[in-house]
Amino acid sequence: MNPRNRTNFSGGPGVLPESVLQQVQQAIIEVPEVGLSILGISHRSEWFAAAVAELENNILKLLGLSENYHVLFLQGGATQQFSMVPMSLLHGKAHPAEYLHTGYWSGKSVADASRQGPIRVVWSGAESGFLRLPGDDELSFAPEAPYIHYVSNETVEGLQFQRVLGRDDVPRICDMSSDFLSKPCEAERFSLIYAHAQKNLGPSGVTVVLVRDELLAEVPDNLPGFLDYRSHAQAHSNFNTPPVFAIYVVLLVTRWLIGEIGGLANMARINRAKAELLYKLLDSSDGFYRGRAESRDRSTMNVAFNLRSPEMERRFLAEALAAGFSGLAGHRSVGGIRASIYNGLTLPAVEKLAGFMEDFRRS
Amino acid sequence: MNPRNRTNFSGGPGVLPESVLQQVQQAIIEVPEVGLSILGISHRSEWFAAAVAELENNILKLLGLSENYHVLFLQGGATQQFSMVPMSLLHGKAHPAEYLHTGYWSGKSVADASRQGPIRVVWSGAESGFLRLPGDDELSFAPEAPYIHYVSNETVEGLQFQRVLGRDDVPRICDMSSDFLSKPCEAERFSLIYAHAQKNLGPSGVTVVLVRDELLAEVPDNLPGFLDYRSHAQAHSNFNTPPVFAIYVVLLVTRWLIGEIGGLANMARINRAKAELLYKLLDSSDGFYRGRAESRDRSTMNVAFNLRSPEMERRFLAEALAAGFSGLAGHRSVGGIRASIYNGLTLPAVEKLAGFMEDFRRS
Repeated sequence: MNPRNRTNFSGGPGVLPESVLQQVQQAIIEVPEVGLSILGISHRSEWFAAAVAELENNILKLLGLSENYHVLFLQGGATQQFSMVPMSLLHGKAHPAEYLHTGYWSGKSVADASRQGPIRVVWSGAESGFLRLPGDDELSFAPEAPYIHYVSNETVEGLQFQRVLGRDDVPRICDMSSDFLSKPCEAERFSLIYAHAQKNLGPSGVTVVLVRDELLAEVPDNLPGFLDYRSHAQAHSNFNTPPVFAIYVVLLVTRWLIGEIGGLANMARINRAKAELLYKLLDSSDGFYRGRAESRDRSTMNVAFNLRSPEMERRFLAEALAAGFSGLAGHRSVGGIRASIYNGLTLPAVEKLAGFMEDFRRS
Repeated sequence: MNPRNRTNFSGGPGVLPESVLQQVQQAIIEVPEVGLSILGISHRSEWFAAAVAELENNILKLLGLSENYHVLFLQGGATQQFSMVPMSLLHGKAHPAEYLHTGYWSGKSVADASRQGPIRVVWSGAESGFLRLPGDDELSFAPEAPYIHYVSNETVEGLQFQRVLGRDDVPRICDMSSDFLSKPCEAERFSLIYAHAQKNLGPSGVTVVLVRDELLAEVPDNLPGFLDYRSHAQAHSNFNTPPVFAIYVVLLVTRWLIGEIGGLANMARINRAKAELLYKLLDSSDGFYRGRAESRDRSTMNVAFNLRSPEMERRFLAEALAAGFSGLAGHRSVGGIRASIYNGLTLPAVEKLAGFMEDFRRS
């Protein structure tokens, strides 16, 4: 088996666009306008401050947001946000924050928030095995809640909300780690959005947080600086040494989204085309491939499915790997197969996978 | 001014070895043995688990440590450790932990620890402007302290301890961010060592923590997982998505330290030669260049000095930059000039700087 030139369909870290990788490769030796390796440029340099400013603007621009949002580049992944959000907004509150439990990752957010203060689980899909998302008729949100929190796309189960949840008079907080910048998201309806980079935006090691001005006023004064959104906002993500390289790669990805893709509406069209190709293949396979999620709630990012038996799935994974398709095993918590098709994964790459799947079914 | 091919003398992120950069450049497109870009390899892959295991072993081997230490790769820099150490070891303790205040960075550690519990500042150089470090006759450590904390090398002031401090019956904790793996450090005498990567080990975005087994038993149970050393130790730094790229670069640097340099004693010899070259130049300049730190406490990593006037310093910095020497401005808190000469910066590069400094003095 030749390992060269595989395509990465794993749940993350995901594929980055070829043109971005080429620029990164150059920057490892020398960022052209600086004359230094991107791995050895001072985070206090004017060049880096300008890079962060451009990246902040690119993200606001892609989302159509005005300047009453701060864009922060933090460390610690979504996991750190699971705690930072309630540490910032839940301490000393009389009413519980409202959480949706729609899969593996929102389950983690619920557990971590519970350690910080009172929360109420508005809806849970645990009993039904996280095969679907709630309809509006199943949801009722309290006006006095300090905030509502949900996960827009459940990476493990392949479930994605196709609408904005909650109520406009309660701050909406969303973990968009696995679909941020994959499509327009009505960002102006959210008070705080967070997303680690390693699905659609860049390498692991940096987390984007978008937070409205007003929310910062709620943060208590007794948090260590690195857990205080305000320190990072005031310092434009240079409160302490930021992950310079990862931030630079995210900058290149946003330039690609704006310049080569032409914005999030175009990105969404490409991502839908990729997902529809695979879902159609599942649905027309006479039950050979069976999609995991209910059709209405299917994710454009993570196509999770099963074959007829675990043995057949093992054979599928082995043959797929030999054919150059890497990372197709489902998450260890649910098994099965999962094709993650983030921004950087091209339609031709998905077509190749679809071709392999057709062949495998026939053989 | 042509920005190409500058050399980075900044306080950090520092220069990485050329051979490491070449391997990183290849890995951006494809890690040879995997067939995927290092930016898009699953952190749950067997390959990455093996990379982390090799890196843990390389660090233990370089330091001559046995296996009663855990080696962790965390996010958040030394700043996060300033809080994580007292969060883990100071809560509920009757006696204060003992801190040395020897410069800018240990000052930050003192301030952050004070928010978490009782501390005692054993010695402070604040009044004397942080121009020297304490002698043993100025230090007295209490046997009942939960731990003693100090910073082995003060990056801003160019001060470095040439001995291990504290007492053997109290856990010793050291921020070695700016001299870790630059020389042998008697690591077995420490209970916990932390060091962000961006001086001597790799790019910013990952922090190495070495912690003895016994210390983990002290960690309280109410910390969020990402702030609990035990979660990271149990998961071999895969508790949540780690900074895969930064960890991989640190792995390459340790391979370079072992294979090309031949271990820390050799690295120390090279680093001493680089520092001596510059300090001799300062001392023989008839007061044109004046070293900041007292001779005995001079750092092999950060050579901080002044010229006769701020105006002369501005001219020096401008001409140095034009000649290709980047990042020589002293830290914004103290001004002056600082040449940071970490592991990745070669002796020939320091010789070039010395040549420039001689020429500048003559002109």
